[in-house]
Amino acid sequence: MKIRSIQSGESSEMCLFQIVGRAFISFCVPFVVMLGLSWPAPAQQVDTLSMMPLPSQLQLGNGGFLIDGSFGIELTGYTEPRLQQAQQRFLDLLSQETGIPLWREASINKATFKVHTDGHSVPVQQLGEEESYRLVISTSAVQLTAPNPLGVMHGLQTFLQLVRETPNGFSVPAITIDDRPRFPWRGLLIDSGHRFVRLPVIKRNLDAMEAVKLNVFHWRFADDAGFHIESKRFPLLQQKASGGFYYTQTEVKEIEAYARDRGIRVVPEFDMPCHTSSWFRAYPELGSGKIPGQSSAMDPTNEGTYKFLSEFIEEMAGLFPDAYFHTGGDECDFHEWESNPRIHEYMRVHGIKDGAALQAQFTARIQKIVARNRKIMMGWDEILQPDTPKEVVIQSWRGPKSLADAARRGNRGVLSSGYYIDLNQSAAEHYTVDPLGDPSAATLTPEEKARVLGGEATMWTDIVSDENLDNRVWPRTAAIAERLWSPEDVRNVDSMYRRLAVVSQELGYYGVRHRMITEEMLERMSGDPDPVALRVLADVVQPPREYDRQKLRNFGDFTPMNRLDDAVPPESETARVFDGMAQRIAEGKATPEDWLQAQQWLILWRDNDAKLQPLLARSFLTQDLAPVSRNLSQVATIGLQALDDLKHNQPVNADVRNRNIDFLNAAAKPQAVLLLMVAPSVETLVKATRTN
Amino acid sequence: MKIRSIQSGESSEMCLFQIVGRAFISFCVPFVVMLGLSWPAPAQQVDTLSMMPLPSQLQLGNGGFLIDGSFGIELTGYTEPRLQQAQQRFLDLLSQETGIPLWREASINKATFKVHTDGHSVPVQQLGEEESYRLVISTSAVQLTAPNPLGVMHGLQTFLQLVRETPNGFSVPAITIDDRPRFPWRGLLIDSGHRFVRLPVIKRNLDAMEAVKLNVFHWRFADDAGFHIESKRFPLLQQKASGGFYYTQTEVKEIEAYARDRGIRVVPEFDMPCHTSSWFRAYPELGSGKIPGQSSAMDPTNEGTYKFLSEFIEEMAGLFPDAYFHTGGDECDFHEWESNPRIHEYMRVHGIKDGAALQAQFTARIQKIVARNRKIMMGWDEILQPDTPKEVVIQSWRGPKSLADAARRGNRGVLSSGYYIDLNQSAAEHYTVDPLGDPSAATLTPEEKARVLGGEATMWTDIVSDENLDNRVWPRTAAIAERLWSPEDVRNVDSMYRRLAVVSQELGYYGVRHRMITEEMLERMSGDPDPVALRVLADVVQPPREYDRQKLRNFGDFTPMNRLDDAVPPESETARVFDGMAQRIAEGKATPEDWLQAQQWLILWRDNDAKLQPLLARSFLTQDLAPVSRNLSQVATIGLQALDDLKHNQPVNADVRNRNIDFLNAAAKPQAVLLLMVAPSVETLVKATRTN
Repeated sequence: MKIRSIQSGESSEMCLFQIVGRAFISFCVPFVVMLGLSWPAPAQQVDTLSMMPLPSQLQLGNGGFLIDGSFGIELTGYTEPRLQQAQQRFLDLLSQETGIPLWREASINKATFKVHTDGHSVPVQQLGEEESYRLVISTSAVQLTAPNPLGVMHGLQTFLQLVRETPNGFSVPAITIDDRPRFPWRGLLIDSGHRFVRLPVIKRNLDAMEAVKLNVFHWRFADDAGFHIESKRFPLLQQKASGGFYYTQTEVKEIEAYARDRGIRVVPEFDMPCHTSSWFRAYPELGSGKIPGQSSAMDPTNEGTYKFLSEFIEEMAGLFPDAYFHTGGDECDFHEWESNPRIHEYMRVHGIKDGAALQAQFTARIQKIVARNRKIMMGWDEILQPDTPKEVVIQSWRGPKSLADAARRGNRGVLSSGYYIDLNQSAAEHYTVDPLGDPSAATLTPEEKARVLGGEATMWTDIVSDENLDNRVWPRTAAIAERLWSPEDVRNVDSMYRRLAVVSQELGYYGVRHRMITEEMLERMSGDPDPVALRVLADVVQPPREYDRQKLRNFGDFTPMNRLDDAVPPESETARVFDGMAQRIAEGKATPEDWLQAQQWLILWRDNDAKLQPLLARSFLTQDLAPVSRNLSQVATIGLQALDDLKHNQPVNADVRNRNIDFLNAAAKPQAVLLLMVAPSVETLVKATRTN
Repeated sequence: MKIRSIQSGESSEMCLFQIVGRAFISFCVPFVVMLGLSWPAPAQQVDTLSMMPLPSQLQLGNGGFLIDGSFGIELTGYTEPRLQQAQQRFLDLLSQETGIPLWREASINKATFKVHTDGHSVPVQQLGEEESYRLVISTSAVQLTAPNPLGVMHGLQTFLQLVRETPNGFSVPAITIDDRPRFPWRGLLIDSGHRFVRLPVIKRNLDAMEAVKLNVFHWRFADDAGFHIESKRFPLLQQKASGGFYYTQTEVKEIEAYARDRGIRVVPEFDMPCHTSSWFRAYPELGSGKIPGQSSAMDPTNEGTYKFLSEFIEEMAGLFPDAYFHTGGDECDFHEWESNPRIHEYMRVHGIKDGAALQAQFTARIQKIVARNRKIMMGWDEILQPDTPKEVVIQSWRGPKSLADAARRGNRGVLSSGYYIDLNQSAAEHYTVDPLGDPSAATLTPEEKARVLGGEATMWTDIVSDENLDNRVWPRTAAIAERLWSPEDVRNVDSMYRRLAVVSQELGYYGVRHRMITEEMLERMSGDPDPVALRVLADVVQPPREYDRQKLRNFGDFTPMNRLDDAVPPESETARVFDGMAQRIAEGKATPEDWLQAQQWLILWRDNDAKLQPLLARSFLTQDLAPVSRNLSQVATIGLQALDDLKHNQPVNADVRNRNIDFLNAAAKPQAVLLLMVAPSVETLVKATRTN
């Protein structure tokens, strides 16, 4: 990121900035500036900003532009209804951010914010279409300019992220931003295959995508569990395989329009030939299993399959205007084919050596069908074969090396490995994954590098519900959005977490429910409108990571998602902050505030069990938390002792120390499908003590 | 309320109940029951229920009916789309209450909950239409029966309120409920005249109305500030007087359908002849002022006014199917008429002695217009004159005595005095107001009493926004709903508050935002995603009551509602609970828990200022809170000393005591448009100490 402080001409002040959350104060002192000279903005200046993603280039000025009831906005240049709507959405959000009813007035007031659009976008938003904008904010006026509506929409979101409270009112800093994305494909997959996701959930996630400049909504419609979109040619699909819940074509068009209004493409996925058992509830003849109803793969040796898919893809290609069409192709269990005598015989006759080769033949035929419908096929890693046409786009769940390999072979790709937001990893883990981050990518030519189109966060819905989906997607997906938009060298994790907390709060204005879900679910679990003690426990636990959760708990299609591992966010903010303190204390780098806060937390946790324990038995949803709560208390007791030992540099008994470490190791293991996240941090403290 | 424990036949257990919030445990022990004998259910049994409003008659049984994934529901008897929708809404809510995805399955599962509707409602919901239902819950089945869809909708809401967490799962108690309302008119007025209220706000408030069995949405469209509904005959009204925001007739019809779907009538109000200056922006000839644009009353001496209103009322009477049509009539400033020479001359010529008599003449003519449109006129107190036709319904902002007087004269009436939820009174204050509560009502005959139709909570929008409206309406309006539905002798304030807390939480499932608004607004004010210290202060302050707030702060049409007096609820729950403790301590009736909690709170409040004070200066929205925060600290310091004195029965210096009382009195006065609600409670403590 190139950051220069603005060439401030007559400016003669040096400004110091402080920020806590979004509140902001600056102290400006007279300062002689050498005219015409630019210099890097100090990091603390940039740290006053809470944008996410950070723009590709910015120059900070002095002072700010006040936002009050006289604020006015005007669209100039090219215009279209989408821009009017973007303006109204912007005013609604700015009203929410400030509490000033600008939604009524700002388009009538004299314009202090001028938005100029040079020209139109293409009718169907394209991959790689221009998305840049320039935002110039002075103390008296704001000018946003962009080549087309896409850039305008991005610029409006940037402005909203710049708003902060100051002693003088709401304000945005004087700044010049020239911004454009690093990658053209920045997506979020929502899997409506495993579980039907209701329209309001989809819409509010599209709203949030706009906020962080994501531009691809990858919408997956079917899996073994269900088929959730209306087909007019094959209506048995929704009639027999949707469980009564599917998107009508009218609703699909509504979502497409909603997405386009927000600068977002909609790429549909119909996963085939595997994960398709729901299809066979309607059309059993498509399946390859020996026993009807026990098949999960299509029969790739049956001409009827291709006839069916040819008609089906034609229908769906007509429903989705985007140029890309995703046909899945992941995780085929070849045993189903290989154990079917008829298919086995077909493979023998045609010299197909194994299931993978059979899938390759299937993929090649599907690709031709997709291409015949003037669409570009996209699929998961598995579809890439030596003879895969170069236009096919690979979505990688295997890792950035696959993408580099594909790029070298001439295929474009999108990274999802590392962005699996259903796996309860930390924002930092996702943030450090780069689509071009594999060592082998370093040797790609610029042309090859350009084939790595970007990435997609994937919200698989195996074990998520409409209720808690938002808290799995947000705020961590904003960190992924920054990885995909911002320059490669924007990678300071501390800065990311600071800004993520602010963006997370702002996303509430977009209707995303991630910040309120936990509280609501705790109230429900406990039957208590103010579950104080349960909240203390919830604050320091997380669902197990990767696929451990599925191993510890039985999830069926209708399993209620109403337990504590459903309720808490995938990443415990309290535990993360506590861990930082514990590390600083262990390293002798802690501040007095660190010591105090760590002690206060440990006391809270130690004493919480006595309050919580009698309450847990009241509800079946909290009963199994009893040992977790006891462990927290015990972990905190050990932590307090360690803190005391460290403070007074007291030697400790080696046996006791070892027993404590053993206990902490045990306490860090999943219990009641939860990880007690502070146990490892307390272990850090204990290990920092010295034995006698 | 008649409460009998169910005649339990073979039952041979006695059950003890405990409840905290909605979590519930029962211990059943063998108990010999005399067959056929009924006895009053102990109060603690009824206290396990969290319904609001409480039903008119119930019999509690033993055990409960479990709600799990096998729950099924079926509609039998008469059916219509409205019932299907009510069922789906019920399943959505039950899914939210439990986290079990019943919205997908419960209408397919074998029906354990049978809903029988005897017959249809009338096409346009009528005042006094049957609303009763019978709900019988055993441990194995649920039966809801009602004469018509209105009763079914009420019964479904009752069932939702009975759901609670138990050690065995979600459950409703075995119970038999026979329920019907005490009053047929149970309303909420939302004033879209002072301020345009957006449709989603209206809708979620209708959802919440259904939850507490309110059945009249009184929708007010115009005031001096604006005219916010589309007229096709007089389009200048919305074009010139709406500020660009008005309900189209299509939207009005949408709301009417939405309300009817929830058993709610929509009664429109067009306030006239005063509070009407917005009309004159479009049609200045209607005004009576000497200077155009400075008039707020219509000219009742101008035939053109009646011609206009005749056409206007005809149009609006066609738009609103309800039988009642509200023409306002409140608070005329007669000076405007009396000081206009032309009007003055008219009055002289026609022998009209004063403004009130002139308004009476106006009202009589409007009443004829309304009646010609086959509507029944309704208006505020002022319209009741000696010759007012008996069919006219009076809405009283003056008090229950007006209603008793009107009833004696043959007019029906609806109480709103005492239910002004914009005035920041406590739920208890509203709860104790009874439409038949005036001493003079005691002597009414049953026929006269029946003329008192009920009441309406009034959400005037002078100083409220779309954002904080919900927290002014809810949860307190649920207490008013209980007053209007439940038997007269249901009036235990402690029980009301216990149940109100639960209902308040449940209302969140209906989409009402009252519980989250404060937190969101505190985050905005402070710019801090986790404003811990500001939250402590916010928890113990309230906006000033009655009309004090308007006196302390300048409110214009576009004043941002983003300050602490906008953010906090009208009633501080913490302060209310603390006051109870303080009183028990002062009276020597406190428990050890009271002493401990009071002390912990006082320490929290005393120490909060040191944390909060440095943060307040950062944002212009928090700067003026500095003295309030300091006062809280000082009040708490005094409270801690008093607690200590009381605990040790220490005599205190009389001068110090007096100075403290003076300080507490001063601290109880509004500051920064806020009341520090714990100051009077600390005064209670100080006054309980003894001097030496």
